[in-house]
Amino acid sequence: MKPETINELLHHVQSGQCSVEDAYQKLKNLPYLDLGHTKLDTHRELRSGYPEVIYGAGKTPSQVSDIVAAMLPLGNNILITRTNSETFRVVEGLSPLAVFHETARLITISQHTTQPPESPIAVVTAGTSDLPVAEEAALTAEFLGNRVERIFDVGVAGIHRLFDRLPVIRSARVILVIAGMEGALASVIGGLIDKPVIAVPTSVGYGASFGGLAALLGMLTSCASNVTVVNIDNGFGAANVASLINKS
Amino acid sequence: MKPETINELLHHVQSGQCSVEDAYQKLKNLPYLDLGHTKLDTHRELRSGYPEVIYGAGKTPSQVSDIVAAMLPLGNNILITRTNSETFRVVEGLSPLAVFHETARLITISQHTTQPPESPIAVVTAGTSDLPVAEEAALTAEFLGNRVERIFDVGVAGIHRLFDRLPVIRSARVILVIAGMEGALASVIGGLIDKPVIAVPTSVGYGASFGGLAALLGMLTSCASNVTVVNIDNGFGAANVASLINKS
Amino acid sequence: MKPETINELLHHVQSGQCSVEDAYQKLKNLPYLDLGHTKLDTHRELRSGYPEVIYGAGKTPSQVSDIVAAMLPLGNNILITRTNSETFRVVEGLSPLAVFHETARLITISQHTTQPPESPIAVVTAGTSDLPVAEEAALTAEFLGNRVERIFDVGVAGIHRLFDRLPVIRSARVILVIAGMEGALASVIGGLIDKPVIAVPTSVGYGASFGGLAALLGMLTSCASNVTVVNIDNGFGAANVASLINKS
Amino acid sequence: MKPETINELLHHVQSGQCSVEDAYQKLKNLPYLDLGHTKLDTHRELRSGYPEVIYGAGKTPSQVSDIVAAMLPLGNNILITRTNSETFRVVEGLSPLAVFHETARLITISQHTTQPPESPIAVVTAGTSDLPVAEEAALTAEFLGNRVERIFDVGVAGIHRLFDRLPVIRSARVILVIAGMEGALASVIGGLIDKPVIAVPTSVGYGASFGGLAALLGMLTSCASNVTVVNIDNGFGAANVASLINKS
Amino acid sequence: MKPETINELLHHVQSGQCSVEDAYQKLKNLPYLDLGHTKLDTHRELRSGYPEVIYGAGKTPSQVSDIVAAMLPLGNNILITRTNSETFRVVEGLSPLAVFHETARLITISQHTTQPPESPIAVVTAGTSDLPVAEEAALTAEFLGNRVERIFDVGVAGIHRLFDRLPVIRSARVILVIAGMEGALASVIGGLIDKPVIAVPTSVGYGASFGGLAALLGMLTSCASNVTVVNIDNGFGAANVASLINKS
Amino acid sequence: MKPETINELLHHVQSGQCSVEDAYQKLKNLPYLDLGHTKLDTHRELRSGYPEVIYGAGKTPSQVSDIVAAMLPLGNNILITRTNSETFRVVEGLSPLAVFHETARLITISQHTTQPPESPIAVVTAGTSDLPVAEEAALTAEFLGNRVERIFDVGVAGIHRLFDRLPVIRSARVILVIAGMEGALASVIGGLIDKPVIAVPTSVGYGASFGGLAALLGMLTSCASNVTVVNIDNGFGAANVASLINKS
Amino acid sequence: MKPETINELLHHVQSGQCSVEDAYQKLKNLPYLDLGHTKLDTHRELRSGYPEVIYGAGKTPSQVSDIVAAMLPLGNNILITRTNSETFRVVEGLSPLAVFHETARLITISQHTTQPPESPIAVVTAGTSDLPVAEEAALTAEFLGNRVERIFDVGVAGIHRLFDRLPVIRSARVILVIAGMEGALASVIGGLIDKPVIAVPTSVGYGASFGGLAALLGMLTSCASNVTVVNIDNGFGAANVASLINKS
Amino acid sequence: MKPETINELLHHVQSGQCSVEDAYQKLKNLPYLDLGHTKLDTHRELRSGYPEVIYGAGKTPSQVSDIVAAMLPLGNNILITRTNSETFRVVEGLSPLAVFHETARLITISQHTTQPPESPIAVVTAGTSDLPVAEEAALTAEFLGNRVERIFDVGVAGIHRLFDRLPVIRSARVILVIAGMEGALASVIGGLIDKPVIAVPTSVGYGASFGGLAALLGMLTSCASNVTVVNIDNGFGAANVASLINKS
Repeated sequence: MKPETINELLHHVQSGQCSVEDAYQKLKNLPYLDLGHTKLDTHRELRSGYPEVIYGAGKTPSQVSDIVAAMLPLGNNILITRTNSETFRVVEGLSPLAVFHETARLITISQHTTQPPESPIAVVTAGTSDLPVAEEAALTAEFLGNRVERIFDVGVAGIHRLFDRLPVIRSARVILVIAGMEGALASVIGGLIDKPVIAVPTSVGYGASFGGLAALLGMLTSCASNVTVVNIDNGFGAANVASLINKS
Repeated sequence: MKPETINELLHHVQSGQCSVEDAYQKLKNLPYLDLGHTKLDTHRELRSGYPEVIYGAGKTPSQVSDIVAAMLPLGNNILITRTNSETFRVVEGLSPLAVFHETARLITISQHTTQPPESPIAVVTAGTSDLPVAEEAALTAEFLGNRVERIFDVGVAGIHRLFDRLPVIRSARVILVIAGMEGALASVIGGLIDKPVIAVPTSVGYGASFGGLAALLGMLTSCASNVTVVNIDNGFGAANVASLINKS
Repeated sequence: MKPETINELLHHVQSGQCSVEDAYQKLKNLPYLDLGHTKLDTHRELRSGYPEVIYGAGKTPSQVSDIVAAMLPLGNNILITRTNSETFRVVEGLSPLAVFHETARLITISQHTTQPPESPIAVVTAGTSDLPVAEEAALTAEFLGNRVERIFDVGVAGIHRLFDRLPVIRSARVILVIAGMEGALASVIGGLIDKPVIAVPTSVGYGASFGGLAALLGMLTSCASNVTVVNIDNGFGAANVASLINKS
Repeated sequence: MKPETINELLHHVQSGQCSVEDAYQKLKNLPYLDLGHTKLDTHRELRSGYPEVIYGAGKTPSQVSDIVAAMLPLGNNILITRTNSETFRVVEGLSPLAVFHETARLITISQHTTQPPESPIAVVTAGTSDLPVAEEAALTAEFLGNRVERIFDVGVAGIHRLFDRLPVIRSARVILVIAGMEGALASVIGGLIDKPVIAVPTSVGYGASFGGLAALLGMLTSCASNVTVVNIDNGFGAANVASLINKS
Repeated sequence: MKPETINELLHHVQSGQCSVEDAYQKLKNLPYLDLGHTKLDTHRELRSGYPEVIYGAGKTPSQVSDIVAAMLPLGNNILITRTNSETFRVVEGLSPLAVFHETARLITISQHTTQPPESPIAVVTAGTSDLPVAEEAALTAEFLGNRVERIFDVGVAGIHRLFDRLPVIRSARVILVIAGMEGALASVIGGLIDKPVIAVPTSVGYGASFGGLAALLGMLTSCASNVTVVNIDNGFGAANVASLINKS
Repeated sequence: MKPETINELLHHVQSGQCSVEDAYQKLKNLPYLDLGHTKLDTHRELRSGYPEVIYGAGKTPSQVSDIVAAMLPLGNNILITRTNSETFRVVEGLSPLAVFHETARLITISQHTTQPPESPIAVVTAGTSDLPVAEEAALTAEFLGNRVERIFDVGVAGIHRLFDRLPVIRSARVILVIAGMEGALASVIGGLIDKPVIAVPTSVGYGASFGGLAALLGMLTSCASNVTVVNIDNGFGAANVASLINKS
Repeated sequence: MKPETINELLHHVQSGQCSVEDAYQKLKNLPYLDLGHTKLDTHRELRSGYPEVIYGAGKTPSQVSDIVAAMLPLGNNILITRTNSETFRVVEGLSPLAVFHETARLITISQHTTQPPESPIAVVTAGTSDLPVAEEAALTAEFLGNRVERIFDVGVAGIHRLFDRLPVIRSARVILVIAGMEGALASVIGGLIDKPVIAVPTSVGYGASFGGLAALLGMLTSCASNVTVVNIDNGFGAANVASLINKS
Repeated sequence: MKPETINELLHHVQSGQCSVEDAYQKLKNLPYLDLGHTKLDTHRELRSGYPEVIYGAGKTPSQVSDIVAAMLPLGNNILITRTNSETFRVVEGLSPLAVFHETARLITISQHTTQPPESPIAVVTAGTSDLPVAEEAALTAEFLGNRVERIFDVGVAGIHRLFDRLPVIRSARVILVIAGMEGALASVIGGLIDKPVIAVPTSVGYGASFGGLAALLGMLTSCASNVTVVNIDNGFGAANVASLINKS
């Protein structure tokens, strides 16, 4: 319930339009649906203009199915992250609009579309192996109503590949840099372009990359001061913030 | 040199307006000044609309003085971070506009001002001990031409203090959350407000906070998906990104 | 053997009621049964009013079976933690009272019941993925003779879900907060309620959560001073301490 | 403001006893005092029966002085932790009741006393070097209105020293075990006594103790299931939880 | 070649008993057999009175088979550690004396026996789950010609089980303490008995035991000063050192 | 495009030999082929005299196949690292020159050969388990046109095996030392031979070797000052640098 | 109290030679002296033939003085470790036999001497910077009644220095290897000599030595199977174990 | 003693030119001087053409003085690393050729010079704060007889500064890249130039740079395959290897 409505509610209680009991129930029945295992925040899109997102990891197909079934009637767009084909088989039975994006491990259900902002979001990767995280980010950004420029495999080991694509990257309002190993691409792009850069370390690499730790520390200590960082492999979160910036 | 001017230069070479030798010199004399110990990027403000920033840590007062002396004639605004009173004593001899902000460890030299964007940047701290980082962030954001709302000491151990200030925080376009210990404030604010949240872990705490590591990991793994993170105690970087977002 | 009985034993030796040899045997035959691989503490419930607990991880089904077979005749309640269906198939052959709780990975054998204390223990989780640990905790607390209030999926990313359930949580004498990722829920609840909070970090999360380390460090450095912490995913231990507090 | 009073407030608004404007002010003026650098939670003792606690680390003497000056008129008991003699010199000018406990780095101002619960809290240390943390814990527990049994220097390297003191330790309702190095004492006491044990790892040790990490990990992975853990050197937090348990 | 024989060799060269060429060959043909993948130290038992040991991890069955086949004719006793049933199927074809110890993951081939020293080696474990490492240690110690006392499942959570077995443990000349989780047993035994204690941390545990790290750090920082430590799960190494001490 | 040709291009633009448009296209079409998922640096061997290398990990067989198919017509030698038999089955269909090296996990396609430098590269391993990394290094060095001396299983636990092979090792111009566990061999060889030593820590070991971390730290802190280090298990990188040194 | 005397005591109670009350007092007054801050184990030398050792770190001069004053009348030898000149100034006032060893940070008070075993203990260091730890070890071993061979500065960077001293090292019954940086010396000596090697990692080094961690991990994962390890810089503990072995 | 001379010695023993006793003495008196605290390798320059290097850290001025005094008569060049002005005051009394390089913390004593190789070594830094390590490397390389090109402050945050200096960097045979923070410069230069790159992580940075760890991990996991790494801040070691390569 939005803060301003509390004031209204108080006026309605004062004026008798609303009984104390009803006011109590409204305050108590905060806007979510209790599915037992999950408390579903059904009014979130209403409040924030944002679709519903279900974090799929650690949820059974039937838990996801319960949540989707409860959401569909509300007409929201629905995004399921870190999911798999087994869950998709259940979900596609609930809605013909469900699409499974295998590389990105996403299921999207788009029940309506919005006009994207003029400026795109750039999704840049250092290598081919960063693709799953990059696609999670790019598809999420598109699902949230943005145009996306994909610039893949332009890591600093062959920096001329990056320079060729700089004009496209410069056209974006916010840039996602997705890189494993040492993650140096974030610093290089951050130094070249005065835009917000959201760096996504990936778990690509071996040995001293320690599951993405090397890239994570490298991006956090970047000498470029326009770089912020999200969790290792968190393409979704990066795209979400990028969309908030791009649509503001 | 901006990419578009390369094309112009080629046309001038073609038309004879510019000799090959001059074109070569222009390409070679990239826009920086070499002070020996430091290569000074003198055209940065021209290019990006941004003031010059000198990272003060690890530089001697006389190195900083050399840099400031070279910058002042260009009329730029100048910010020196992670500095101290000893350096200030040298710098204030170079410009009467120099101001030392002790808590934030900043020196600012504002030679001109700009009109701030309408929406403010919110700088929120969990505790009193986070003040030095918060002031570094707030003063940097102001120096970069933004209005700042300071909301201090509203950590989750007394969450009603935060709720009272939510309307002010909501008025901002981007929110800096500055917290040490477990850094839970970033997740709580991220969950309450659908704006980009830039989390700054601080080294406040002891024992298992391991110099800010606990807050850093907590912020990176935040359950709120609108949170990005910068390095421990990096108030300057957070403010820089916030300004890029706020002024875009 | 309880300390006070040593004094009695000495008196019996003095009075001749007990020979030195018998006293020696009594001191030597300390109250456990030696199964070869395991030393079974058979008098523990007698001493402490507590059921027997078998830590199932790293024990073969036949080792567990040996232990249960030796315990059953003593009439104790028996709890097997971190176990599996394979072990259950062996154990259910020994007692028709054996129940397998799959999500919680527990086997319980309740041979008698006790009157629970008036105040419940609250088991609160941040997300749906924390359910296995939460059920381990809740079932353990119930098995130890307590009433349990389950409040699931009220993480700080949607903090209004938590506030709705505060009265229930406040009714408890001790609160278990079970959360992965950054574990901020422990600090928030700790700040809201002046009761002992036992925080259980879970291994839910990825990347910089490092198998529960982020939540663990966050809970240890909590700004709320009524929070203590147990090992990652240790629902059993948390419930055991909560029961000790609740029944004292 | 306690939840129950919200209901009353609604009734008063309905009945006209309270205007909407006043209700809004009451909701808005949450119970704290804003000192600029600090938001002071003045009604905490009223709400919780607990004294005010000021975390002294990272606060200047004059910040502490501001807070104490604002608190004193409320008649609360006041505890300042992690403080020093410099701060004491300022605080003792504000109240003749101020006492500085040097080893424990605490300042206490007791403006009234309460009747302690019958059962004591036991504060047990492994070695002489754990004394500062132990005294922080013991004095805090006493300040919070508990009787304390101090059992010092009974580490497992000479376990007979511990066994001699077991009856005293057993008399307590909750036991604080304060130990550095490997912290084995927590497991040993946890195994011997079926009471809640709160383990405080200390930074005592060198080399592979890594500032208390060895003791911390050891206590978290204790084979005794009645042990919970607080942050390294956090004697205050441990005493606070112990008091909550002892007075419940 | 032993140092003393270099002198002899020089005398033989001087006296003409040995040509320079032969002396060169003797110095060059150091005492090992080159199998291509492995350099086999065939004279080790001759030199040191010790059997041959093959570290099985990372070696294919056929590599192990090559090594055993080359060793068998020399009449040595042979021990293969960290091996498996697949390798045993190959090895038992080479010698009917080969025995596979499944829990300990060892293959032994005893071609002759020696008289054990009078004092035994004690192998003590904290829990049932430490058995595989304990059996690796115990069988290795026996294979190296020692008597072994096995005292299993006497962890500090039930310390009376340990005290009952102290006389047996005291009878040993050196004590192996094998424990996972927090590894407190090493400190307790070290404090009770003035004999060399070799502590073997095991990877038993979960969460903050971090694969044996908690036990490892705990044992390294033990408050008992008669404890030395070997690598996590290294039962073989511990037994080898114990045997060196016991047979010296 | 090499820097010197920029000057030529400018002259051609000036002289009218090259239009501005063409110059722009040349600058834009930097020398790589875009396969969508991968940007192929086709001119690398031309520029550097080096074959093409495909990092196989994280690439699907069909992605590798696309790359190889695009490279083959250029007549380059091709090396695929960290690959597997599944990928080989696809690649051998593209060229009869493809060879799969199973232990080293390499595929080589040698379309032409070069004359190796006189001095060999020495590849030295501590144990038999280091073989896969050693073969990756040795085969890579040979593929890059060097002679290789393999000296395997000469770890410091039997240092006489090493001394016997010193003359061969001394004959090399650069020495690769490949070792897991504590990696002491790098320091010993570094102390014995005044040549550049490139140390490759391997993930061979268990427990406190932490996946190669112990060897990595040991090699980085080597007391021998002629040792540099590459990532854990990075046989390819070490061989690449060794070849650069050997052929310079 | 030694176990065997419990039996005697029981007989005396039975025979009336000892009253129950006296027996209770004897069991209660376990053999230590309580100084308030410290529990002094006065009978330890009687029991174990070992002198008293005071761990000086974290104890004030006056605490150490209290302990020494209580011990001196018992005629024991006394060793104070990790101490300083300030403490020595207090201690030398208590006994003219007190000697301060500055490099080793030890105070010794030898009130009687014992005949050392025939075989010496070898104390070997890698470098000159390891001297303080080496002297702590050597002086402790001598204080405990052993002959010591000092072999300093024979690290593997110049391995011929080590080989020259092998005969002396071989003469010892147990060898202490004290090394920082990568600590390779422990493996090399362990491989050369079939004696128990106790490795002491030192905090000598910088960067990736991480305060001795590199040496510690290297020694724990040594490829030589006769190496056990103690805490970083723990010369005292290593010497104590060596003495137990040498005198057994 | 060089291997070849052993053969000669044997011939001399055979021919009677050398007695067995003398041969024994020659083998025993290996070529170093024993100063008690230090074993001085006096023939090293003879053997390897290299000057003597004294690692100054952890050595007292008088220990360094002893070593220098013993070396000077041999006519070698002498380099003292990680030293200070206090030590210099002692050393300059021994030789008028001694020079103290304050930034680099080096003392050099050049008693003779050599002709440098044609190609220089490039020493490249990311920032001004890396200067001390860079000067340690540059001066060491010069002292070892190389020409050095210094290219300072060309970090990737302003990559055009780097590109301007590429021709100079390309002229070197081996390149040292010295960088703190995320250390991305090593990957960028490695990708641009097919020469051996030796990366030196520096401890420049704060927070998540963890004393150079971020740069270290970044350089180890570099996507450029011509990068090897030395210890944090190890300018000397990097220069030593570079010189070995440059002079081979």
